[in-house]
Amino acid sequence: MGRPRRPLLDRERIATTALEVVDEQGEFSVPQIAKRLGVQTASVYHHVDGRDGIVELLRERVAAGIDGGTLDLEPWDAALVAWARSYRAAFAAHPRAIPLLMTSPVRAPKVLAQYEKAVGRLLDAGFALPDVMPVIIALENLVLGSALDLAAPESMWELADETATPRLARALGAVPEGRANQAFELALAGYLAHVRTLPDAP
Amino acid sequence: MGRPRRPLLDRERIATTALEVVDEQGEFSVPQIAKRLGVQTASVYHHVDGRDGIVELLRERVAAGIDGGTLDLEPWDAALVAWARSYRAAFAAHPRAIPLLMTSPVRAPKVLAQYEKAVGRLLDAGFALPDVMPVIIALENLVLGSALDLAAPESMWELADETATPRLARALGAVPEGRANQAFELALAGYLAHVRTLPDAP
Repeated sequence: MGRPRRPLLDRERIATTALEVVDEQGEFSVPQIAKRLGVQTASVYHHVDGRDGIVELLRERVAAGIDGGTLDLEPWDAALVAWARSYRAAFAAHPRAIPLLMTSPVRAPKVLAQYEKAVGRLLDAGFALPDVMPVIIALENLVLGSALDLAAPESMWELADETATPRLARALGAVPEGRANQAFELALAGYLAHVRTLPDAP
Repeated sequence: MGRPRRPLLDRERIATTALEVVDEQGEFSVPQIAKRLGVQTASVYHHVDGRDGIVELLRERVAAGIDGGTLDLEPWDAALVAWARSYRAAFAAHPRAIPLLMTSPVRAPKVLAQYEKAVGRLLDAGFALPDVMPVIIALENLVLGSALDLAAPESMWELADETATPRLARALGAVPEGRANQAFELALAGYLAHVRTLPDAP
C-alpha cells in the first residue's frame, strides 16, 4: 500500500479536533477524538502524552489567542490590564473549555513562558514575592468569570412575572447595552485600584 | 398491574440525576437522564418544561446552597460580601455546572427572588439604578471564576524545567497554602473598595 504524502495525524490536527469537541460538549475523550479523525485511539496516543497531553494542546491553542506582547507595555499596570483584556477575549471564544483548563495543571511550555513574563513584570515593579501569584490568580478569576459571562445571552434574566420581582425588573430595564463589558470593566478597575495598594506595590 | 406507591418520577429525582450527570460530564441530555432513571424520555418531559426546565431545576438545586439570609445583614456591603462567600461555596461544590448555568437565562423563581433581594439592598443603600446590575454581575463573575479556581488542584503550575521559568518557579515557591482563598479575598477586597466609590454609593 502507498503511504499518504501528508501524515494523516499530527498534533495540530489533534488539537483542532479536540477543541471542536470541547466547544460542542465542554468535554472530550481520546476515543472520541480518534473516531472523528478516522484513526485508532492508539494512533492518537502515539502523538500526545495521554489525555493530559491533549489538555495541554488545547491550552496552547486557546492561549495562542492571547497577545503576549501586551505584557511588554509600560507601566506594569497598563501591561496587566492589556493582558487581561486579551486573555478574556481569547477564552471568551472558547467558553466551554474554561472549566476544563481551569481545573487541570498548567504544563504547556508556551503558556508557562507567558506566566514567567507576567511574574517578571510584577517583580520588576516591586511587588513582594508572596503577593505575585495571588495578584495573577485573582486577575485570572476575574478574567475567566467575565469570559464565561461574555458567552451568556444579553438577556440573562427572564422574568415571567415582573410583579414578583419589581425592583429586579427596574434594575434590568436600566442595564445599558454591553452589560458583560461594563461588569468586566467595573471589576477590573476595582482589582487594579486594590492591587496598587498592596505592600511594596509601586 | 399494580401501581407503585411512590411515584417513579418527580422533579426532585430529575434534579438529582441531572446534577449527578453534570457533575460527571459538565453537560447532560434529556434521554441520558431518562435512561439513568429507567424511564422513557417522554416521561421526563411530562414533569419539566423541556431541557431548559431541567437547567432551571439544576440552578435551583445549586443555588439552594446559597444562604439567602446573608442578604439581610447590615450594612449593605457586609451583606454583599457574605452573600458572595456563600454563593462561591455553593457553586464550588458543582464546578462543572458553572458554565452551563452562566450561559443560560435565569428563570427559576427562587433564584430570581434572591436577585430581587440583592437589587433591593443596593437600591436602598442609594446606588444609582443603572449601576445596580453591573455591580451584581461583576461580583458574580468574580465569585464564579473563584469557584472554578477552588475546584482546581492546589499545584496548578507544573514546571518540568524550572530553569526555563525561574521567576515563576520562585513566585510559586512563595505561594502560601490556600492560594485560591487568598486570590478570592484579594479580588473581593478590590471589588468592594471600588464599588464604594461609585456615583451615589453610600
